[in-house]
Amino acid sequence: MSSSAALLAPTDTFARRHTGDSATETTAMLALLGYPSVDALVDAAVPPHIRRGPLHVPAALGETAALAELRTLASENKVFRNFIGTGYYDTATPGVIQRTVFENPGWYTAYTPYQAEIAQGRLEALLNFQTVVTDLTGLEIANASMLDEGTAAAEAMMMCHRLKDGDDDAHRSFFVSEKCHPQTIDIVKTRAVPLGITVVVGDHRTHAPAADCFGVLVQYPDTAGSIHDFGKFFAAAHAAGAFTIVATDLLALTLLRAPGEFGADVAVGSAQRFGVPLGFGGPHAGFLATKDAFKRQMPGRLVGVSKDAQGDPAMRLALGTREQHIRRDKATSNICTAQVLLGVMASMYAVYHGPEGLKKIARRVKLLTELLAAGLRAVGAKVNAEPVFDTLTISNVSAARVHAAAEAKKINLRRLDETSVGLSLDETTTVEDVQTILSFFSESASLPISDLPSSISEFPAPHARNSAFLTHATFNRYHTEHEMLRYIKRLEAKDLSLCHSMISLGSCTMKLNATSEMFPVSWPEFGKLHPFAPSEQTRGYAKLFKDLEKWLTDITGFAGISLQPNAGSQGEYAGLLVIRAYHESRGEGRRNICLIPTSAHGTNPASAAMCGFTVVPVACDAHGNIDVADLTAKAAAHVHDLAALMITYPSTHGVFESAIKDICATVHAHGGQVYMDGANMNAQVGLTSPGHIGADVCHLNLHKTFCIPHGGGGPGMGPIGVAAHLVPFLPGHVFAASASGSQPSTLNSQLGAVSAAPYGSASILVISWMYIRMMGPDGLTEATKHAILKANYMAKRLDKFFPVLYRGNAGLIAHECIIDLRSWKKSGIEVEDAAKRLMDYGYHAPTMSFPVAGTFMIEPTESECQAEMDRFCDAMISIHGEMQAVVNGESDKANNPLKHAPHTAKVVCGDEWDRPYSRETAAFPAPWTRTAKFWPSVGRVDNVYGDRNLVCSCLGMAAYAEAKA
Amino acid sequence: MSSSAALLAPTDTFARRHTGDSATETTAMLALLGYPSVDALVDAAVPPHIRRGPLHVPAALGETAALAELRTLASENKVFRNFIGTGYYDTATPGVIQRTVFENPGWYTAYTPYQAEIAQGRLEALLNFQTVVTDLTGLEIANASMLDEGTAAAEAMMMCHRLKDGDDDAHRSFFVSEKCHPQTIDIVKTRAVPLGITVVVGDHRTHAPAADCFGVLVQYPDTAGSIHDFGKFFAAAHAAGAFTIVATDLLALTLLRAPGEFGADVAVGSAQRFGVPLGFGGPHAGFLATKDAFKRQMPGRLVGVSKDAQGDPAMRLALGTREQHIRRDKATSNICTAQVLLGVMASMYAVYHGPEGLKKIARRVKLLTELLAAGLRAVGAKVNAEPVFDTLTISNVSAARVHAAAEAKKINLRRLDETSVGLSLDETTTVEDVQTILSFFSESASLPISDLPSSISEFPAPHARNSAFLTHATFNRYHTEHEMLRYIKRLEAKDLSLCHSMISLGSCTMKLNATSEMFPVSWPEFGKLHPFAPSEQTRGYAKLFKDLEKWLTDITGFAGISLQPNAGSQGEYAGLLVIRAYHESRGEGRRNICLIPTSAHGTNPASAAMCGFTVVPVACDAHGNIDVADLTAKAAAHVHDLAALMITYPSTHGVFESAIKDICATVHAHGGQVYMDGANMNAQVGLTSPGHIGADVCHLNLHKTFCIPHGGGGPGMGPIGVAAHLVPFLPGHVFAASASGSQPSTLNSQLGAVSAAPYGSASILVISWMYIRMMGPDGLTEATKHAILKANYMAKRLDKFFPVLYRGNAGLIAHECIIDLRSWKKSGIEVEDAAKRLMDYGYHAPTMSFPVAGTFMIEPTESECQAEMDRFCDAMISIHGEMQAVVNGESDKANNPLKHAPHTAKVVCGDEWDRPYSRETAAFPAPWTRTAKFWPSVGRVDNVYGDRNLVCSCLGMAAYAEAKA
Repeated sequence: MSSSAALLAPTDTFARRHTGDSATETTAMLALLGYPSVDALVDAAVPPHIRRGPLHVPAALGETAALAELRTLASENKVFRNFIGTGYYDTATPGVIQRTVFENPGWYTAYTPYQAEIAQGRLEALLNFQTVVTDLTGLEIANASMLDEGTAAAEAMMMCHRLKDGDDDAHRSFFVSEKCHPQTIDIVKTRAVPLGITVVVGDHRTHAPAADCFGVLVQYPDTAGSIHDFGKFFAAAHAAGAFTIVATDLLALTLLRAPGEFGADVAVGSAQRFGVPLGFGGPHAGFLATKDAFKRQMPGRLVGVSKDAQGDPAMRLALGTREQHIRRDKATSNICTAQVLLGVMASMYAVYHGPEGLKKIARRVKLLTELLAAGLRAVGAKVNAEPVFDTLTISNVSAARVHAAAEAKKINLRRLDETSVGLSLDETTTVEDVQTILSFFSESASLPISDLPSSISEFPAPHARNSAFLTHATFNRYHTEHEMLRYIKRLEAKDLSLCHSMISLGSCTMKLNATSEMFPVSWPEFGKLHPFAPSEQTRGYAKLFKDLEKWLTDITGFAGISLQPNAGSQGEYAGLLVIRAYHESRGEGRRNICLIPTSAHGTNPASAAMCGFTVVPVACDAHGNIDVADLTAKAAAHVHDLAALMITYPSTHGVFESAIKDICATVHAHGGQVYMDGANMNAQVGLTSPGHIGADVCHLNLHKTFCIPHGGGGPGMGPIGVAAHLVPFLPGHVFAASASGSQPSTLNSQLGAVSAAPYGSASILVISWMYIRMMGPDGLTEATKHAILKANYMAKRLDKFFPVLYRGNAGLIAHECIIDLRSWKKSGIEVEDAAKRLMDYGYHAPTMSFPVAGTFMIEPTESECQAEMDRFCDAMISIHGEMQAVVNGESDKANNPLKHAPHTAKVVCGDEWDRPYSRETAAFPAPWTRTAKFWPSVGRVDNVYGDRNLVCSCLGMAAYAEAKA
Repeated sequence: MSSSAALLAPTDTFARRHTGDSATETTAMLALLGYPSVDALVDAAVPPHIRRGPLHVPAALGETAALAELRTLASENKVFRNFIGTGYYDTATPGVIQRTVFENPGWYTAYTPYQAEIAQGRLEALLNFQTVVTDLTGLEIANASMLDEGTAAAEAMMMCHRLKDGDDDAHRSFFVSEKCHPQTIDIVKTRAVPLGITVVVGDHRTHAPAADCFGVLVQYPDTAGSIHDFGKFFAAAHAAGAFTIVATDLLALTLLRAPGEFGADVAVGSAQRFGVPLGFGGPHAGFLATKDAFKRQMPGRLVGVSKDAQGDPAMRLALGTREQHIRRDKATSNICTAQVLLGVMASMYAVYHGPEGLKKIARRVKLLTELLAAGLRAVGAKVNAEPVFDTLTISNVSAARVHAAAEAKKINLRRLDETSVGLSLDETTTVEDVQTILSFFSESASLPISDLPSSISEFPAPHARNSAFLTHATFNRYHTEHEMLRYIKRLEAKDLSLCHSMISLGSCTMKLNATSEMFPVSWPEFGKLHPFAPSEQTRGYAKLFKDLEKWLTDITGFAGISLQPNAGSQGEYAGLLVIRAYHESRGEGRRNICLIPTSAHGTNPASAAMCGFTVVPVACDAHGNIDVADLTAKAAAHVHDLAALMITYPSTHGVFESAIKDICATVHAHGGQVYMDGANMNAQVGLTSPGHIGADVCHLNLHKTFCIPHGGGGPGMGPIGVAAHLVPFLPGHVFAASASGSQPSTLNSQLGAVSAAPYGSASILVISWMYIRMMGPDGLTEATKHAILKANYMAKRLDKFFPVLYRGNAGLIAHECIIDLRSWKKSGIEVEDAAKRLMDYGYHAPTMSFPVAGTFMIEPTESECQAEMDRFCDAMISIHGEMQAVVNGESDKANNPLKHAPHTAKVVCGDEWDRPYSRETAAFPAPWTRTAKFWPSVGRVDNVYGDRNLVCSCLGMAAYAEAKA
């Protein structure tokens, strides 16, 4: 193409905005590394025998054109008013929360709050979330969110199982009310199978918990709209030695007796209707609350209040010892994240409305529901008995006629059977809506508004709520938009995000979350669809899924994709379930050994345990590679019961292992399947693929490689790809029929659901769609190459100061590297000191002490330019100097900038200063901190103190003072 | 209504979010003031004889419902692809700029950067803007933006007039090329009339500048697409003693010789196509550049580099002495703002693309245009001769057929006459678009792409650009989205906005800019419409205007509204023009005396001067009210030539003057008209109205009373309301036909245009529409009452420390108050010291020294809650203590926290500290600064130094160092 003809292409190309296109920088980086071209470097780093052919995703579109194409696709989704309920309700997201949280990179590009000192904003919002959940459920402790209601229920089941010493054969049955939401029952059943749990579905009113029952799960209000008094049933369950779980609804609980007040041991649910868009199923924030006594068995993340180095209150993630990164296959769950962004939104919704505002919303929903029930009864329909909150089951009607009338008005009701229809009202329902709904049943009927009682009726005893909630000042002072805006912005300002500087977390791939990728998430055509809407209304989504499935099969080298798992951990679990089902289908259900290298992320063994596998560790050699001999020996030893090998590629040591194909072949030869952890997919795209290497399954962290932002600690998405022989075993879904429609779907699989919605957190799939569509095959491949170039550049710059621990071909690394800080420990300098000191330089620490204690794992991603990497390296080198000063005796061993890091403004501007280093050294250790200083808002947090004095919800200020004392 | 029936209304009511609804707070405030109810207070504060009846705007809708109603209205706008050109071009707003500037309250809620120390972010972005303009135009100095290209041209004319000692009868004519954009010619003509300037429109190729000519204006490239060499014409103009003005296009200038290189004295234009949406006409950023020698005659705002108290570079508004607030009727212009938000966007667009990126965009536009021209010639159409950039005039065709074909493809071309059609291509144009356009002229024609030369052709001499531009590092380093995001966020973090704390600027009404009001500005149905699109496509806008006109006539008590003036200053000017035209229509054109109270804002006399009026000041009495005797005497003295009284109500002294009706009657009795400055409309809405009081015209600052954000110093909107007898004289517009369509329109008035677009900055009118629609009559009136309540509350709390200077009925004030700090001057404490010290407390100073030197004018607005006002008052009281300490001798007179304010982190964390007060006193003078500290990014700025050493564009770092030395 002539250069003038080339100029005809649109100028808003994306790849250069994502990856950077400065030839000068690339040349400079290559010069340091001693390679003539990026390709030469990549050819040296990546073993030739694993290289794949070119990608076949469509050629890149410019940003404008890609958005236009997606807009066309979106227009095939029909935005109906939804009264389907079943755990998903329309909601009015307050504008200030939508714009200033949901659409604000200051919130959505932040990482998980491991570095608490620069994450106090999110931590406070999550503490608010936990307070909302504990207050409304009447339980003592709640976590910082779950993936969705269905998985929260399944986690609750597993938790109760553990509490009963689950391996004991005496307690193997679990009762589930038939009036739980169908998708919850589906997930619980799926989850139960590999754990050997028998799920009994029935009517709690007639069911007597058996002697082997370890837990019961009921829905409150139930999926059909009835509100039961579970007091007696729970007493019976407790008498039988079973734990009690309530799946419930936060809005209803503002008016209903709290589960903790009628004997619930655990409460689960979704906070979606607290201002989080439907999004065709997600992302939303699920929740789980329980008694204090069970806190160490609780799954998921937990925020707690502790104190900092100055003794001031400071929040951080608490009780981490429960989690998979410590406990591995003995962990409480494989969950290693939360739905932070959505949890923040839901908590902000509660802050914005306050207890009185929430009650008003709930009372209105209840009144509208009662009004509709009365209107329906007046025209002869049969409606479930009062008390009701928001949901009605209407029987004795022609469902087909009702649904047809509703469809004509662009309204969805819940499809039940030929003579009954369900519906749930919500915050956005108007009197006119209710009148319209009534007309579907009888054209001339009108609502009995004139019969309304003069005063508002509350729920009768024993259903009425008598306890107060959200009495903390935070929920009672930010009710104007100005105050709310300022509260949100104050919290945002405490958190370091990609808006400030690179976050070079190894294996977390904190790349650019481009605005063009984020825009469509807010489009109503994606945001306002109910996950169980009829397929005729969701053709746009169907096309999106089909595109993504096609592109991801190309990228992974697989035959099928399931988009259902809504987190990486879920993907691992789903992928292993697929392997399990495959073995069973061949009559090899006995295969239950899962080989996992010692370097693996803790989620791997935790997921294997959830699938009923027994974990057998495989050693690594001195170069960080899998010890092939050990692997071969163990595969051979388990030739009859080998189920799978779980492997990360490139390895968590940041190296393209050459033996990978042989390793896969060995596992296959011994009857096993290869599960590849997709965490490091960013080093593979376009260069190699899991399928090409020989894996049978992998999950993809779309929030790593495919640009879904980390959201401050979630949401993620963890779809799985599988080879052809495994496609029949991909996850199904109880609502497969409505979800798949005319498209051929994998959802009718024999395997049950793993997530509450058929396509997981569907609405954020648009982000990955946009990314792939704007990058095209060349852009994606170039991104991988630059990720490798940049990681090697940083490794080279840092190696002289902090040796790079593992290397592959030609002394090169893949897309990340581990640098060694262990040798400093003998001088009293911990890796944590360097991590905290980085904050003073305006940086988030790399991954700390994983997979090797005392190291940093650094991954720059392709999205950082040389100048930014240089700043980070300069910070590390400067810290090296500070460390050296301690070793040399120039600095005091205890009283030095490393040990006191991070330095808050309070400390540096304090009237007292008795340190042997200067204030300027403390606060402005590098020139760029002069022009843009990010101040950590608290000093170093005392984790141990916090775990010993656990405070996990908002208390009065007196309580904080007490905790401090 | 029963309380349960009341509960049926939607719960997302807006008024309580805007105004606050805490009964507790209201009761507490009333208790301090000693009134039993808000109504009792308002009845006491507002003279009974001016009270009006209830508003008739429609009842309030909830936020969701109002957005839904506006969505319906928006759907009546048709989004066509626009190739109309004529000064407005489609553009691809980079996502990161849209989300992180345009849709970010951190940018759009900031105030004008008068307090430079907490506005360095905007000031840097505006310095970038000035650099873009000076570099591309090849001139030495540019201002921080103008309202639009048309008014910039008119301002340039006035500037040249002044440079020629405009009152001199020898220089009264001004030449305008007939190939300027029609709306520019329209505005220039309107502006010329009252100044006695004769506008000569003609062909520059045949025109010889006359001896009385003081200036010439040409368009480059011209409106028809031709590119002329103006060298000879300009030489002739200069020889005749005339100044030369070029209206030009920044994108074209990346390839074309700079106007400064062929003799231009002034260049004007619009930066719209640098990433600012069309918005049916605005808001956009116009620009004006000139030679250094003329800088003191330049209109508008100018950012310059100076130094701070520590000698570090710091930016601030420069050469303020040119402006209306100092020079009043002798000012360079009545403009008292800029289009900051849009100037920031345009400058960020240049930063994002850099010089090479901009050139690439321009080359592509040029190539597509040349390709289309070739294709058109091939099918026998006549096209303007090369060189061309983006615009073609095609003659010898059936225009009706072409436009019909275009319409069928949802494409707009420019309508010229029956046999010719115009079009302009832009950044967003694709090859497919060009092919489609070609098909309108000949269905079978195809673009001669294969004939393209292999290399890119540049403009031939003398048109080619040879000079470099945007060589500064800022324009060459932020080209990835991450780098751009971080640059934007770094600048944002330097600026204090409503996201941080209240900004209590008297007469500026910094109320809530609610998110629901802001959302629709981003909707394509409002953002992507060309201002000259056919009226069939803009019916949604027409309805919006009709609604707003109806509502604003109700609110003002007037008969007609013009939505055209796109700033308050423009509204004043337009309103006075209407009065002038009215007098002329009655044969009283001699009336040219404009009475203006001495307390008036400087814009008033400046506007009067622009209308050819002679300003006669009217005294104020000791209570701050107009001296009625003086007024009566002056009206009587000028009974034959009294044109108007300009009056602000409530007065700028913050008082409802009781005599207002008498004052109006006196003016009317002497043949004058009453112009009411709408700056203080926030104290009137629902309680009284300009029409009710007796005014004939007023302007409305929609960016004050009606919630358009201040955008960091613009955009504003200044529509005018007029009494029935003045309706025929409202501004017209050359494109009235396309703009008004089937609606009856005032645009066909005999008066010309005052702004470039028929409805000014149309796209932000949606903000005011949403505000009124969500507030309803009760909400609007309550807002006014609460504005009065809150101002009185603050006045009462502060009075003991800083006496309130003026009061009205019952010792009460209106919606703002003046507090007196003059008495401290004798102790060496200036009002500025308090203003700067407020920054250390996290606050923006109130209006300083206006209308009385040595005072603060404080206006809390209804949108601040008691807690926030209390914090501000506590800050002021604490500062009072610091002042008292100086007086008492406890603090040193020069070395104290007031004189050193504001305190930067650099200073407070410095290793040196030799001050008699502590670091903590410096940085954390109030408890809330401990939890959320806003750090001023520079110390107190030296204004005088900056004006003496004027630097108004980005220079190399060496230059900064030099300036510092």
